[in-house]
Amino acid sequence: MTDSKTTLKAASKASSKVQGSTQNKLPPKENFSEWYHELLMTAEIIDNRYPVKGMCVWFPFGFAIRKNVYGIIRELLDPDHQETQFPLMIPENEFMKEAQHIKGFEDEVYWVTCGGTTPLDVKLALRPTSETAIYPMFKLWIRSHADLPLRIYQIVNTFRYETKHTRPLIRLREITSFKEAHTVHATWEEAAAQVEVAIQRYSEFYRRLAIPFLVSRRPSWDKFPGADYTTAIDVIMPDGRTLQVGTAHHLGSTFARTYEITYEAENGEQKLVNQTCYGISERCIAALISVHGDERGLVLPWVVAPTQVVIVPILLGDKEKVLDVCRDLQQKLAAAQLRVQLDTSDERPGAKFYRWEMKGVPIRLEVGPRDIEKGVVTVARRDGVKVALPIDGLEKALIEEAEELQASIYNKARLFAESKVKEASSIAEAKEITKFGVALVPWCGEVDCGHQLEDQVEANLLGEPQYQCFTEAACAVCGAKTAKRTYMARQY
Amino acid sequence: MTDSKTTLKAASKASSKVQGSTQNKLPPKENFSEWYHELLMTAEIIDNRYPVKGMCVWFPFGFAIRKNVYGIIRELLDPDHQETQFPLMIPENEFMKEAQHIKGFEDEVYWVTCGGTTPLDVKLALRPTSETAIYPMFKLWIRSHADLPLRIYQIVNTFRYETKHTRPLIRLREITSFKEAHTVHATWEEAAAQVEVAIQRYSEFYRRLAIPFLVSRRPSWDKFPGADYTTAIDVIMPDGRTLQVGTAHHLGSTFARTYEITYEAENGEQKLVNQTCYGISERCIAALISVHGDERGLVLPWVVAPTQVVIVPILLGDKEKVLDVCRDLQQKLAAAQLRVQLDTSDERPGAKFYRWEMKGVPIRLEVGPRDIEKGVVTVARRDGVKVALPIDGLEKALIEEAEELQASIYNKARLFAESKVKEASSIAEAKEITKFGVALVPWCGEVDCGHQLEDQVEANLLGEPQYQCFTEAACAVCGAKTAKRTYMARQY
Repeated sequence: MTDSKTTLKAASKASSKVQGSTQNKLPPKENFSEWYHELLMTAEIIDNRYPVKGMCVWFPFGFAIRKNVYGIIRELLDPDHQETQFPLMIPENEFMKEAQHIKGFEDEVYWVTCGGTTPLDVKLALRPTSETAIYPMFKLWIRSHADLPLRIYQIVNTFRYETKHTRPLIRLREITSFKEAHTVHATWEEAAAQVEVAIQRYSEFYRRLAIPFLVSRRPSWDKFPGADYTTAIDVIMPDGRTLQVGTAHHLGSTFARTYEITYEAENGEQKLVNQTCYGISERCIAALISVHGDERGLVLPWVVAPTQVVIVPILLGDKEKVLDVCRDLQQKLAAAQLRVQLDTSDERPGAKFYRWEMKGVPIRLEVGPRDIEKGVVTVARRDGVKVALPIDGLEKALIEEAEELQASIYNKARLFAESKVKEASSIAEAKEITKFGVALVPWCGEVDCGHQLEDQVEANLLGEPQYQCFTEAACAVCGAKTAKRTYMARQY
Repeated sequence: MTDSKTTLKAASKASSKVQGSTQNKLPPKENFSEWYHELLMTAEIIDNRYPVKGMCVWFPFGFAIRKNVYGIIRELLDPDHQETQFPLMIPENEFMKEAQHIKGFEDEVYWVTCGGTTPLDVKLALRPTSETAIYPMFKLWIRSHADLPLRIYQIVNTFRYETKHTRPLIRLREITSFKEAHTVHATWEEAAAQVEVAIQRYSEFYRRLAIPFLVSRRPSWDKFPGADYTTAIDVIMPDGRTLQVGTAHHLGSTFARTYEITYEAENGEQKLVNQTCYGISERCIAALISVHGDERGLVLPWVVAPTQVVIVPILLGDKEKVLDVCRDLQQKLAAAQLRVQLDTSDERPGAKFYRWEMKGVPIRLEVGPRDIEKGVVTVARRDGVKVALPIDGLEKALIEEAEELQASIYNKARLFAESKVKEASSIAEAKEITKFGVALVPWCGEVDCGHQLEDQVEANLLGEPQYQCFTEAACAVCGAKTAKRTYMARQY
């Protein structure tokens, strides 16, 4: 892999903070918003200067991360899902068919009304999500029980006319990388089982990114428009607010009724299908950056780093010899399928360290004459661990270092996330906790109590934690005994 | 690879011609248009029933081909281009800046005018191509000669409000897979050299797809709006019309002037940059399908076939033994990195042959008790060649068969293409030839003569063939002596 693959020579100037070898640090991570915006530019993830609000440009380096991240999603879905692609535009009449659904989206839809200078006969919606594009085709594709289950997905750009404050990768008007899966089943139970499968796959995905997460069942008033229920995955961001980074929806037969999607059962009966859909967007990359990054820049898990190992030659004494050793090392690691770069630029080592740390490279190798004499290289991990390791067998040793690094960044993230979730037994406590994190609040499950909670705590109900059991406690609103809890947080 | 990865169980019913095991053949390829549309459905490439004209759905199988085809493009560009992504929407003021360019596109642009129920302050164009989205950012990215050359590309959906007859993969309103590269250079000459590089890469791309092509310099009135010149790649379709499947444009400093893209030269002077752009769309897949396909369906080159080898067990005698041998074979071939499927469905072998031939699978293995007794399998190539080969060492032998198959389909395509290009010395001859193919016509190069040629021949000037030399002849219009020629054809 050459330098040109992931580094835009010109882009470092994009940030006013980086000029020449001046090593201005990022703002402290406590100033999360400022730190986040600065990091996106300095590390060359996203250029936010595009002249339309809420629409961003992927720098080549950011795009390389995106490619690796979505590669994992494909790997997890491909065994039993089929990738496909549907059109971006949805004719108004199809879009308007499902009443509940359109109610959830009508304020945020971009409409195409002209082609050239001609007004269109039928207005076209830019998909905010693709149910209304895909399901009319499912009606044509599905005839009998033998066609089920059907599981497809696509990775596409979607559009939402956000009136709230936009943020790169978090709240966008063009979501450039929406992975949406849509499945069709014979029975409600099979669809429910598919929602579980989706959550399992997403859990595995976030595990590979070393990101801790919460799973909860959204309250009825916050489910996907048209769904029977919604299960969601949230990540706790550095400022304690949560970011919804994955959802899975049981659609029941709502859309099947609207779009007349039926199948012939084995007994010859015509039945409505049951459906699910589940999605992940580039918010997963916002979480990746925010959870692991530090004041020195990105911290990338091994599996998604465009450059996994950078070799920095320490050019003292016999420079050619040092470079020869570095080149050999580069070849050996590349042959072992590691994504490795040798940095032979003119900068001094300190400036190189700074630049590669900013880019989140998991492992830096420093190779100088003294190392070579001893037959070792200095291995500097992005979590700060530094060791000398023998050049012989380094490929294998680096894989072990990468595994330890993964465990180390996950543990750091887990300790932070755990420190942010606290039990609250009253509205006052919940209000205090949600200023900086997530409150776990006893809630009887009644809609009225839920609304009162949100109003009085001034935070959102994420919903009931999944895969957990709790002891009985008094509902924070009505005092009724309940073994139920809800997460509460301020949401992005 | 499991069956579910590339075959949509439900989609075969998409075609009215295929029901159960009825093996209706496709229309003869001479009826090209009918054959093409029917094949797209029956082989599950594209579903043309989406309720917006000119917008299509990729079936999973078609999408798998697309993925492999675009994988080759990435492989060819990645060594010195960086993949990136720019927004779909371009604000009207940016879009309208370059006068020549906008003149070329204004009739075909889709306009977004409303967000939710609110009219937008600034209308947003859906990119028909991305110069006006990308170049304002290049202005920010480029400062000095050290930032050059800059080479990026993106693979995105683009939109053209086509008023002509639309055709799947050929003339679309949503082009789902536009690969557009944009490069920036210090000098005009360096940009010209980059146009050559682009054409070389595209040539290699079509060679890998075993597709013969023509390269020509478009006449001045058919160049890209805003370009100094345009070099294009055309493929001759089965009906003798040509399909433009790749273009490379020298943009000179036209856009640099409009968007003020300058760099500081080594002597400190501020200079305008020189630019190129070059693109390929899913038309390359239309060419792939059309050039190689036959009455039995798709014929896919080895390198892009989602399934390269299908194993069909002939279940006579000891069925379990036959299946065991097939499963062993499948494992062995998969271990050798071949994309292999074992078809254990309930159909009879003839129906399986039909289905896999329709899908263009390069090699079919037939394994029956008599083959096993002799230690061989029957290898049926998609070009009709059938041989028995020893099971021992089959992996290697199949690679050789694949190479021969590639040569065989390329030669067939080349002979056809060569038969379609004929020299014409007069307008009358050119008119006759272009009814069924491509005419090579002496043309002095004068614009007037060119327009007269197009009017009187009733076909288009593709332009001067590149990388070829010709003897002197008389211009078909004015009679002036010239060593120049132009291709003429009816174009898609």
